[in-house]
Amino acid sequence: MHTSLSEKFGIEYPVFGFTPSEHVAAAISRAGGLGVLGCVRFNDPEELEAVLAWMDENTDGNPYGVDIVMPAKVPTEGTSVDLESLIPAEHRAFVDRTLSELGVPPLDSGAEHATGVLGWLHSVARSHVDVALNHRIALIANALGSPPKDVIDQAHEKGVPVAALAGAVEHARRHVANGVDIVIAQGYEAGGHTGEIASMVLVPEIVDAIGDSAAVLAAGGIGSGRQVAAALSLGAEGVWMGSYWLTTSEYKLGSASAEGPSAIQRALLGATSADTVRSRIYSGKPARLLKTKWTDAWSKPDAPAPLPMPLQNLLVSEAHQRIAASENPDVVAMPVGQIVGRMNEIRPVAEVMDELVKGFDSAVSRLDSFR
Amino acid sequence: MHTSLSEKFGIEYPVFGFTPSEHVAAAISRAGGLGVLGCVRFNDPEELEAVLAWMDENTDGNPYGVDIVMPAKVPTEGTSVDLESLIPAEHRAFVDRTLSELGVPPLDSGAEHATGVLGWLHSVARSHVDVALNHRIALIANALGSPPKDVIDQAHEKGVPVAALAGAVEHARRHVANGVDIVIAQGYEAGGHTGEIASMVLVPEIVDAIGDSAAVLAAGGIGSGRQVAAALSLGAEGVWMGSYWLTTSEYKLGSASAEGPSAIQRALLGATSADTVRSRIYSGKPARLLKTKWTDAWSKPDAPAPLPMPLQNLLVSEAHQRIAASENPDVVAMPVGQIVGRMNEIRPVAEVMDELVKGFDSAVSRLDSFR
Repeated sequence: MHTSLSEKFGIEYPVFGFTPSEHVAAAISRAGGLGVLGCVRFNDPEELEAVLAWMDENTDGNPYGVDIVMPAKVPTEGTSVDLESLIPAEHRAFVDRTLSELGVPPLDSGAEHATGVLGWLHSVARSHVDVALNHRIALIANALGSPPKDVIDQAHEKGVPVAALAGAVEHARRHVANGVDIVIAQGYEAGGHTGEIASMVLVPEIVDAIGDSAAVLAAGGIGSGRQVAAALSLGAEGVWMGSYWLTTSEYKLGSASAEGPSAIQRALLGATSADTVRSRIYSGKPARLLKTKWTDAWSKPDAPAPLPMPLQNLLVSEAHQRIAASENPDVVAMPVGQIVGRMNEIRPVAEVMDELVKGFDSAVSRLDSFR
Repeated sequence: MHTSLSEKFGIEYPVFGFTPSEHVAAAISRAGGLGVLGCVRFNDPEELEAVLAWMDENTDGNPYGVDIVMPAKVPTEGTSVDLESLIPAEHRAFVDRTLSELGVPPLDSGAEHATGVLGWLHSVARSHVDVALNHRIALIANALGSPPKDVIDQAHEKGVPVAALAGAVEHARRHVANGVDIVIAQGYEAGGHTGEIASMVLVPEIVDAIGDSAAVLAAGGIGSGRQVAAALSLGAEGVWMGSYWLTTSEYKLGSASAEGPSAIQRALLGATSADTVRSRIYSGKPARLLKTKWTDAWSKPDAPAPLPMPLQNLLVSEAHQRIAASENPDVVAMPVGQIVGRMNEIRPVAEVMDELVKGFDSAVSRLDSFR
């Protein structure tokens, strides 16, 4: 399974795997794909620096990338303290009441309270870029569309291509005009930030709209070789997968341990493809999340409207921390796509990759038999 | 392009084309697919009898099918007069006010007022089955899931296979248990009645769930050979296309004429993939429609909640008639899928079919080059 894009990156398979876990990202790169490390959780550039140094050592010399979260328009800046003052009391009261109703305990008095994910801020995302460009990264992807022109130039000066997510043709055209090298066509079924056009329609639409001016990766709903074949049928040069790695053995975030999967993983393993919602409650922009008692609470009539980015994430960041600590699979706050219905066992990354490649091959053989 | 399903039906290509137009249905069958005539618009069985007699004569001996609308659960029965009394005055007032605000004139005093589409009623759908089974039909499809067991038996006694739409795995399992032969996996992106799971996820999920007990057609988002290849990659044995035929030259419903496309077609030609909404306002169940000033009005805060099936369709049937007569592309009431973004010119059915077949072939050649 190879395309011009996998050749360009010098990787075995055109499988781009986004994950917040460096262990998963490194395993994806070692397995022949391109592991792309999500940086948004690193409030402190030094933390990212240490993790990327680890990536350099643990990817067998294979390429890897980073994913930043940089809105095209610069949002309200400031320290978390400044921003906190913009959050209405009604919203705070709703969060407190909901957590209490859901039986989510407060943090231990000793625990460090979350300051919110500052990675949503422009200045922090820029620090991620600065840090990453000092490592041997092969890609910078931006989860919120084109980064600013000077960030693209900065990456290009170091010979690093830039990818950007697009949920509609007009996003893709804008990215190309801004100098983006790879457009990630993110379908409605995808986890995290997503638009309303499903992959079946969106991918060929974006491929046709941008022609040869950039490569297209298909994102959303991919977790098997058949789905990779479908994505490449639609004109993509590769796939971008995020959700599917959350149930790999290497994923240890959310307190997965040797004793077994974490609460989040147990929730994901039990979910069907119908158990997601697309909502603004995670970040302020529409994102697909696992449907749980937490997302249900926000869709009740008494719930306030979510705040704009980055305020909503600041509002719920301590809640996310409390929810994570409570380790209750019924109350989880987690972006995931409709492919969660196929995430039914914990497997090593290499085994997932092997199935993608073999499944792709069988799917193409089957198609050949139809000619 | 052939699969075991196209062989079973004795058709050249596994392309099942649903359409309310007998001219389009016949053209699809003549072009090597299987034209499936939507029956819901025939309130009078004799009208359907005449149209199927025409189909028998105009399909060059090729097979064709019919599509009925028969809810699994028997809804409120009665004449339209009985049912009309169940519609709240508030809803009628909203419809009248909205049409007036949108500048949709009343019907000419001479015009026959619509009695609602009685095809939504169980008894009328049964009459469609009775009429159709006296013609050389090759398929009965039900747009609302499994028809009752005795209807399936009635079809099977005449050697006619039964297909049913499914928007989720549990629907598909139920259909198979009821004796349905073909499951149509209808993704979120599809026009008309549709669920929330996109084709990329839904199709392989249904294929895996039902195994060899029934064939699977992929529906939703298909209008090019690349999309056919994607659907077959996902494990389907063929495709079910509805929206795409609305902009064929043979489609004359909605007053298309020799002078040019109808108001509905002009609206479709101008729409992008983002110009649809999934709403209960057409039939009472969630259906994807072209986004127009009419659908916008129903999503405003002052709009009442849509009524259950079949009341909602009775409520809006005269409105649909008035809207059609007004021939204003901005105020159209029309089910269509996200593929509308690719429906940009009026073309003959045979040309569409040719592109599907050639496009499939190129897509598979491209996939082969990736191995």
